[in-house]
Amino acid sequence: MPLHVVVMTLFPGMFTGVLSESMLKRAQEAGALRVELVDFREYATDRHRTVDDAPYGGGAGMLLKPDPIFAAMDDLRARVGQGSPPEERVILLSPSGRRFTQAVAEEYAKSQRLILLCGHYEGFDDRVRQGLATEELSLGDFVLTGGEIAAMAVIDAVARLLPGVLGNVASAEDESHTSGLLEYPQFTRPAEFRGMRVPATLLSGHHQNIEIWRRKHALYRTWKYRPDLLRNARLSERDREWLQGFAAGDFSGIDVW
Amino acid sequence: MPLHVVVMTLFPGMFTGVLSESMLKRAQEAGALRVELVDFREYATDRHRTVDDAPYGGGAGMLLKPDPIFAAMDDLRARVGQGSPPEERVILLSPSGRRFTQAVAEEYAKSQRLILLCGHYEGFDDRVRQGLATEELSLGDFVLTGGEIAAMAVIDAVARLLPGVLGNVASAEDESHTSGLLEYPQFTRPAEFRGMRVPATLLSGHHQNIEIWRRKHALYRTWKYRPDLLRNARLSERDREWLQGFAAGDFSGIDVW
Repeated sequence: MPLHVVVMTLFPGMFTGVLSESMLKRAQEAGALRVELVDFREYATDRHRTVDDAPYGGGAGMLLKPDPIFAAMDDLRARVGQGSPPEERVILLSPSGRRFTQAVAEEYAKSQRLILLCGHYEGFDDRVRQGLATEELSLGDFVLTGGEIAAMAVIDAVARLLPGVLGNVASAEDESHTSGLLEYPQFTRPAEFRGMRVPATLLSGHHQNIEIWRRKHALYRTWKYRPDLLRNARLSERDREWLQGFAAGDFSGIDVW
Repeated sequence: MPLHVVVMTLFPGMFTGVLSESMLKRAQEAGALRVELVDFREYATDRHRTVDDAPYGGGAGMLLKPDPIFAAMDDLRARVGQGSPPEERVILLSPSGRRFTQAVAEEYAKSQRLILLCGHYEGFDDRVRQGLATEELSLGDFVLTGGEIAAMAVIDAVARLLPGVLGNVASAEDESHTSGLLEYPQFTRPAEFRGMRVPATLLSGHHQNIEIWRRKHALYRTWKYRPDLLRNARLSERDREWLQGFAAGDFSGIDVW
């Protein structure tokens, strides 16, 4: 059974390009992913298909009314029934939610259905959160016009973890935020390009030295740019010695800064 | 002069929907934003338009070669010249970068040109970072198939800050990650929907009580879901008393949980 992703949005057209190219296209073709876009404006009952209204208590901007999105969800429930986490999750994309991380993507990849509620304008009437959402999710501490781009990020990060989607399983595993360290620098041909050379160790063919070089550079980058990640990374005795070296200004063996 | 955003990508078609709907469409129509998509595959020089190659030292997956992206950048430079930060930024989207936040979006909104380099597959040969990028930027601690969706998030978050893009300036300012707190819950009509009522204070029309209600609920939500934000928030004496109350289990005046 493919993972069933339902996106409730006023702007289904925003998803056209993203769903029809690259990995997300292949994931759907491979039967690993099924994405359904629901425009909840179609569930507005008045003549003008109104989806927003002014907030109680005053203030700038318009708020999404509860009725159309509840009606859209009723319709979905009539077709597919109702599950509960972890099988099914109803995710309200909102800056107030828990932060999206690779661990969350891994949880979601084990679900059978993800329903993504995309707000727009000033967001939803809070009763959407109270009555429909099983969780709120935030992409990060920045403000987007709506939940749509956040939903795309979630779909992409989750879909690539589904069985059969990435050709090479090692490719999904040997990456930042899976190993807990940033990635080591990588190089391909030519060995010299515009005066910049590939580090000699990587050209040597000496596998053990290459492994050491990669581990040391992954550690160095993490230490330099994201030291917070070191707290939860699995580190060997040798890793810890290198980190002590960096802290003391010893960067021997570091070729790429 | 509109903000000039150049996206270097192998999948320009991914951007079709996002750029032609909602706020990003209006921002371009209003002359505040100009987005240029550059497919650097067109700069590959061999017959098969090869853009990737195996990594030196072995390993899974393919790496983006330096030559096509450098050639695409040469071509761009011949047309538009070369600036340096803060006027122009060349941003490599990568999990190793600094975290994208609203403060970064505000910086970027003051630029004249943003060049967004979108990797794909296992990412770029490191010489792209060394030779072209002024900075690396990460959307968060999760793995995407490429930089494209991250670039969309950056464009959206920045464009809405450009002068003239949002109809109502207050709307951009009165939001989470600007005030430093999560938003208070909002409600619109009807006053009762499926048994869920709008809190009486918000229906009262008593502006001072409404302001107090909103501030207290914004604080409560932040305290509950994102206490880390309280460290940098500007808090009044009354705010601090409420927070002490929450910590002691006093939730008087809290209607929305």
